[in-house]
Amino acid sequence: MEPIFESVAIVGPGLVGASLGMAIRRHGLAGRVIGIGRRESSLQEALDVGAVDEVTLDLAGGVGKGELVVLATPIGVIPTLLPQIAAAIRRSALLTDVASTKQAVIGQVTAALKARADVVYVPTHPMAGSERKGAANATADLFEGRACIFTPLPGGAGGELKRLRALWERVGASVHLMDPASHDGLVARISHLPHLAAAALLECVTAEQGSFAAGGLFDTTRVASGEPALWRDICATNAHEISAAMAECEKVLGRMRALLDAGRLDELEQTLRRAKRKRDDLLARQHVPRTPT
Amino acid sequence: MEPIFESVAIVGPGLVGASLGMAIRRHGLAGRVIGIGRRESSLQEALDVGAVDEVTLDLAGGVGKGELVVLATPIGVIPTLLPQIAAAIRRSALLTDVASTKQAVIGQVTAALKARADVVYVPTHPMAGSERKGAANATADLFEGRACIFTPLPGGAGGELKRLRALWERVGASVHLMDPASHDGLVARISHLPHLAAAALLECVTAEQGSFAAGGLFDTTRVASGEPALWRDICATNAHEISAAMAECEKVLGRMRALLDAGRLDELEQTLRRAKRKRDDLLARQHVPRTPT
Repeated sequence: MEPIFESVAIVGPGLVGASLGMAIRRHGLAGRVIGIGRRESSLQEALDVGAVDEVTLDLAGGVGKGELVVLATPIGVIPTLLPQIAAAIRRSALLTDVASTKQAVIGQVTAALKARADVVYVPTHPMAGSERKGAANATADLFEGRACIFTPLPGGAGGELKRLRALWERVGASVHLMDPASHDGLVARISHLPHLAAAALLECVTAEQGSFAAGGLFDTTRVASGEPALWRDICATNAHEISAAMAECEKVLGRMRALLDAGRLDELEQTLRRAKRKRDDLLARQHVPRTPT
Repeated sequence: MEPIFESVAIVGPGLVGASLGMAIRRHGLAGRVIGIGRRESSLQEALDVGAVDEVTLDLAGGVGKGELVVLATPIGVIPTLLPQIAAAIRRSALLTDVASTKQAVIGQVTAALKARADVVYVPTHPMAGSERKGAANATADLFEGRACIFTPLPGGAGGELKRLRALWERVGASVHLMDPASHDGLVARISHLPHLAAAALLECVTAEQGSFAAGGLFDTTRVASGEPALWRDICATNAHEISAAMAECEKVLGRMRALLDAGRLDELEQTLRRAKRKRDDLLARQHVPRTPT
């Protein structure tokens, strides 16, 4: 098959960026993949795992080489790079990002691109990841069977959106369009709340108590081994939705506790039964391999 | 090596009971293992996986064959069986249970054994399990590297406790002695609270939202696929400790939410960092394979 893009520049080839690079190269979706980073060692890792064809520490130079530019740095780093990117990105290039929160990031990117009406920006969020970070943990099949949510700007991006969609579908993702606010509400519930709840569960356990734990506690809290700085950024850029989800979770726990305290075990069992059914149904409909984490 | 027990009768050879039977047989720790159940089909499963040498639907007859009798039924079933067991158990037999909560079960068993001062009762709780149930999911290595908590009665059991300890150690567990109240407080935090929190997280997600979930949500809520009736029994017999753990978790979540609402992200990140460190440390000290679930 023909490549979809002549060149793809990945800014920040960490776990997600490098996995995308590996998948693009495996499926021949770009003429070349350029990795742009801030540390020689990370770039070497991206080269070593075959995520990129070439690397550079020069942000402007690297970005200028991309027909498609993928912002894959931690969310908190994005604003510090945008002025240079807006200045260096090619005429009529396609810019995308893979950030886990969309409204705040979209605001930052569109502000930075004010003077670059030629650049097409399509925000996306591939629903895949790992608590492990860096190109060393990247895998070409990270996106297989996963959803990739597009939150296009009003006015749309027409042909460029179609090309980006084709790229994500060729690396195995199913693309869904959603408005940014709905996206942020969604991920607050399916990803951000579980992360904070996992941290809260660990706060309720001493190290001594934890030494008796079986697989249950470790699985329930796996996500809490994720990088705190990344999660700080996520919290900062989706605070409102996360706060609402946490408040609901506290309320649900309080309700379950009240049932327990009152000895209303039939109703408590119903809650457990509903939760089991929901999870089992979701799992059954997930016709894809689990992320290898 | 010599068997430790001439015969072991396992009442309720489900996931835990059948796994113990398999492990006992693999390591040659008993002359024979008798499986006692209420359904032909479950007993056939136990035979098929090699968990037992023989099976019976006759509770009294089966229990009478055991030098060691292991109560491995769901917690809620135990009281319904105790009168028959107390009548049928051999003179000077050793009785044990593997229930996940101890204070309530110990109360029931000791009351039933009032007229049987000859019987030695040692309550235990192997810290291993799965959200899958039944002998079909049993594995001989379920207890390898796991803790098995003994909560012996005051007065102790001396030689019999030593024999039971030897059995658990030979199937790979490390035995820890604890008083029943400490045990119940411990498991409320490392097992029961995570279970109820997983259910609460699923209550906060619609089926539609859940269809976008990646591995994070599935791992965080894995335990919620466990059998609701079993968990109802656990909640019923450890309500006080579970309620206290839930209240603390709600408080911790509320504190984290207040930090988020106030934009105190440094402090929120510290919480995430502490949780990550605790989990990573626990995982590093766990020198054993994870339960295969």
